[in-house]
Amino acid sequence: MSKVKVAAFAVSLDGFGAGPNQSLENPLGVRGPELHKWFFKTKVFQKMHGDGVGVEGVDNTFGERSFENIGAWIMGRNMFGPIRGPWINDEWRGWWGGNPPYHTSVFVLTHHKREPLVMEGGTTFYFITDGIESALKKAKEAAKGKDVRIGGGVQTIREYLKAGLIDELHLVHSPVLLGSGENLFSGIDMPKLGYTVSEKVVSEDATHIVLCKA
Amino acid sequence: MSKVKVAAFAVSLDGFGAGPNQSLENPLGVRGPELHKWFFKTKVFQKMHGDGVGVEGVDNTFGERSFENIGAWIMGRNMFGPIRGPWINDEWRGWWGGNPPYHTSVFVLTHHKREPLVMEGGTTFYFITDGIESALKKAKEAAKGKDVRIGGGVQTIREYLKAGLIDELHLVHSPVLLGSGENLFSGIDMPKLGYTVSEKVVSEDATHIVLCKA
Repeated sequence: MSKVKVAAFAVSLDGFGAGPNQSLENPLGVRGPELHKWFFKTKVFQKMHGDGVGVEGVDNTFGERSFENIGAWIMGRNMFGPIRGPWINDEWRGWWGGNPPYHTSVFVLTHHKREPLVMEGGTTFYFITDGIESALKKAKEAAKGKDVRIGGGVQTIREYLKAGLIDELHLVHSPVLLGSGENLFSGIDMPKLGYTVSEKVVSEDATHIVLCKA
Repeated sequence: MSKVKVAAFAVSLDGFGAGPNQSLENPLGVRGPELHKWFFKTKVFQKMHGDGVGVEGVDNTFGERSFENIGAWIMGRNMFGPIRGPWINDEWRGWWGGNPPYHTSVFVLTHHKREPLVMEGGTTFYFITDGIESALKKAKEAAKGKDVRIGGGVQTIREYLKAGLIDELHLVHSPVLLGSGENLFSGIDMPKLGYTVSEKVVSEDATHIVLCKA
């Protein structure tokens, strides 16, 4: 059955899923990249964004899994870009260059209307202004029976969690202190929402945890 | 040099250092024991509280280390017992029976005066009503050059952290969701306080993290 999932989402020791003060210079927030050390070195990441030479092993396996059977993506507007408020023009086309690593429809949650943006490689960004449930409905249709991946950021995941709409979360606990930023679980009672730990695998750089609804 | 340290302190995936609703039946809060799965099986724990037969390995090594060179303990009143408000009588003598596992002076933070309580095996509980700095001063004197261990619970550790008085924390991240309880780091900016990750070792049941002041 088709799932709604979060995957390869890194969390710091102090519970943050991104660093503070995201900007054009710091797409992942200040010190955010330290969260993703486990991923940058992998074969799957290096194939997408690097020189193609990366390492295999636990982190790579989880990295690869995070892209498998994904039929559509949903992301918050801040994951798409650093611009806040109305779109000034159509110049901003995401962080990822002309050929983003999604290769599916991507539904971007925003309060500000914008025309769909067709990229190379099969990625089209759709800007959704009528809420998370509408975005999920459209994503499920676009996914045609495959899974829908909620990319992030923290606020988007929190909204879907609180609405009870996520089937599975793969979190990657990185041994990093960020100090401030957006806390993933603050005020959210995961066991009450039905989640339990279904998998735990450790690597040199991270602890992989999969949470599923019972 | 003598250190003030937290050791073998378990934290859940959602950031809690104890379960909710501590009581006589649930000294560690509801589902709190799941946090300590890594420890219960170890040789060091089984020697103290069990049949003496436990396993060695990473968790046991860290468990043993947590008791080494400790000259005095500090704990919050809720770690000492389930009673709230004034002491009704002197009947409550801690959770640990006649011979508690401390074997040093233990300074218990409370708002309510009580006479020192001498136990078997070298443990004496002193009840400190004039604040955390006074307790630390007394503990350092009692420790005679050895380390002072802040046992817990969460609120006690948070107070010492915020006051900048802890040199080292050994946290044990357990793959458990507690949902609610006391959050260890909420609102505390650890990098700003000078802490960095100095050690990370994984085991089957936990990820051991040591945080030190730079």
